[in-house]
Amino acid sequence: MMRNLRLTLEYDGSGFSGFQRQPSRRTVQGELEAALSRLLREPVRVIGAGRTDAGVHATGQVANFITTRPLLLEKAAEIFNAALPPDLVVREVEEVELGFHSRRMAKSRTYRYTAFNQPLRSARLSRFVGWVAQPLALEPMNQAARLLLGEHDFAAFQASGSPTKSTFRRLLRAACRRLGDLVWIVLEADAFLYQMARIIVSSLFLVGTGRESVEWLGSLLASKDRRLAPPPAPAQGLCLVKVRY
Amino acid sequence: MMRNLRLTLEYDGSGFSGFQRQPSRRTVQGELEAALSRLLREPVRVIGAGRTDAGVHATGQVANFITTRPLLLEKAAEIFNAALPPDLVVREVEEVELGFHSRRMAKSRTYRYTAFNQPLRSARLSRFVGWVAQPLALEPMNQAARLLLGEHDFAAFQASGSPTKSTFRRLLRAACRRLGDLVWIVLEADAFLYQMARIIVSSLFLVGTGRESVEWLGSLLASKDRRLAPPPAPAQGLCLVKVRY
Repeated sequence: MMRNLRLTLEYDGSGFSGFQRQPSRRTVQGELEAALSRLLREPVRVIGAGRTDAGVHATGQVANFITTRPLLLEKAAEIFNAALPPDLVVREVEEVELGFHSRRMAKSRTYRYTAFNQPLRSARLSRFVGWVAQPLALEPMNQAARLLLGEHDFAAFQASGSPTKSTFRRLLRAACRRLGDLVWIVLEADAFLYQMARIIVSSLFLVGTGRESVEWLGSLLASKDRRLAPPPAPAQGLCLVKVRY
Repeated sequence: MMRNLRLTLEYDGSGFSGFQRQPSRRTVQGELEAALSRLLREPVRVIGAGRTDAGVHATGQVANFITTRPLLLEKAAEIFNAALPPDLVVREVEEVELGFHSRRMAKSRTYRYTAFNQPLRSARLSRFVGWVAQPLALEPMNQAARLLLGEHDFAAFQASGSPTKSTFRRLLRAACRRLGDLVWIVLEADAFLYQMARIIVSSLFLVGTGRESVEWLGSLLASKDRRLAPPPAPAQGLCLVKVRY
């Protein structure tokens, strides 16, 4: 009997070369497939909802795989976790219909970027934050972020050399919030272009430190010209927090 | 002119083989001495207050070194930090009298152990916590911790094979506290025997999960027999938070 299992994953991305399997690199998909194949004694191929880059974390990544092996669902997470490394954990296992596809059927992805906003960088948080030394003004950042909401051609916010059919995406949420020394930027979209989240974040940092205006972000979007956008914010501040279906 | 500079250090210990310099290993002392020697163009030897083990973190490690080079004190931290890796930062630089010795003159060290107390382990926190799956009862842990306060022969809480003149130490503070999923154990002593903090912590975990009684910890202390103590709690939960002079 074939069953389709959906996993909710949490990982510390700092020890992985991203989600996607690569020969002779430690990746989330690679570790997961190796552990599951060993446990289930059949080759397991996992599909992930978001291809997080090297250094990017997740608290709510979703993946699914098909297995023919009998498996007690209530014990599955515990059994999987005993075989997984410390920086990767399965938070939930559910059986879903055979047609479920974690990437193609995702309605939206939510990423959260964490900036450490202090003149002195943090060593202890270095794997989990991007550092912004100058004070960030949240008000103009939120004004600028609102200009990006809705469906737009996000060509200006795509990393160079990424082949995609369409650069139109729908941004559903874009909000900045301060928690003491930390600033959170939450971005939800139907899907993200390659490095789009991190380029939006670095653009918002320019607005927050006063180096660019709120209007600048609007014209950057309208330009559709990626040469006008800043380099992406460092990967380690980014975390995939939720995938909605 | 010789000057003695005192540094307050923060580091993420997960990428270091401990504080103390070792040939062909990445250590805090090694990275610090390499960066300072390069910057000051003279061989720099650093003295640290606490020899933290591999994986152990610090927010308040203290170190000092003697230099003959001119140096603008107000700019020193910034200059040092630009040359240090992301997981090591100098929080403060002060000039102290030439006789100051960060290890020999320390009156006390304070360590904080962080346990993640949930049935499901955390992947994102894995470098910074010890995981305790069973619920910890703080009340008996605090009762047991109080039995250790004061000056005692802590021979039972010393890692095997450690050569020390005396195994007497004075424990000044021992307190457990819950913050949501996390449990903090704060230990302050004039000095710690090798792995003493982590063996106290693992002993308190046995009391907190009900596997041992409060009285057991008292008799463990009285036994002075390290074979009766549990193995040390995992290094990554430990952080050197303060050194007092």
